[in-house]
Amino acid sequence: MNTVKDTNLIKIPKVHDERGSLAVIERDVIPFSIKRVYYLYDVPSDSYRGGHAHNEQESVIIALSGSFEVIVDDGTSRKRMLLNKPNQGLYIPTHIWREIDNFSSGAVCLVLASTTYDETEYVRDYNTFCHLKGEM
Amino acid sequence: MNTVKDTNLIKIPKVHDERGSLAVIERDVIPFSIKRVYYLYDVPSDSYRGGHAHNEQESVIIALSGSFEVIVDDGTSRKRMLLNKPNQGLYIPTHIWREIDNFSSGAVCLVLASTTYDETEYVRDYNTFCHLKGEM
Repeated sequence: MNTVKDTNLIKIPKVHDERGSLAVIERDVIPFSIKRVYYLYDVPSDSYRGGHAHNEQESVIIALSGSFEVIVDDGTSRKRMLLNKPNQGLYIPTHIWREIDNFSSGAVCLVLASTTYDETEYVRDYNTFCHLKGEM
Repeated sequence: MNTVKDTNLIKIPKVHDERGSLAVIERDVIPFSIKRVYYLYDVPSDSYRGGHAHNEQESVIIALSGSFEVIVDDGTSRKRMLLNKPNQGLYIPTHIWREIDNFSSGAVCLVLASTTYDETEYVRDYNTFCHLKGEM
């Protein structure tokens, strides 16, 4: 059963020179093949996103611009992490509740996911999530 | 043989509400499976990137933050395009020379690519590129 200890920060390889920075994700930089790419932008700084878990989908969350905080929760433990570096990705396995808040002005949140959209594998109610975790 | 007319702007589906905008790329939004994701950031505004073509790789370029211009060239025609919208992706097929310049402050350039890195499929010299196009 995944716990918040199974979420971890992945260092994304980057090359920096006088033209700027180039970060690359391919092959085994992240632990899954990318089936879905989505991103949040034009986010009001008092906005709150997330509030769900996945039964099937793994994901990596990256602050491509600005910063925000990600809360991960396994039903027992809860951890809050600041993401503010484009070459750092937060890996979230299945069965972990996540929320995102405290967006900086101009923040861009990129998410790479292991599956395409399927509403049936979302858990959108926190009490249901805790109940499911209790049964695992 | 691909020409600049085969590069085109793809509208990326987005959902906008009071929490901000969410854009999603999956399934057939772009015409290939994603094998490589890379992004440019911390780019000096007078920087210049690109200057190559691919024999195998197709890509989609997106301005996730700020703006920049992409020059596409098929050896005969040349076209310059401003990218400045996160829900707009520029599709570039194989055998098209591309350059990127005129970056705004804080610009983030996301590229989704159809193959992993393989130096042998790059064409990095413009004269060689034009010669190859002439033979096609």
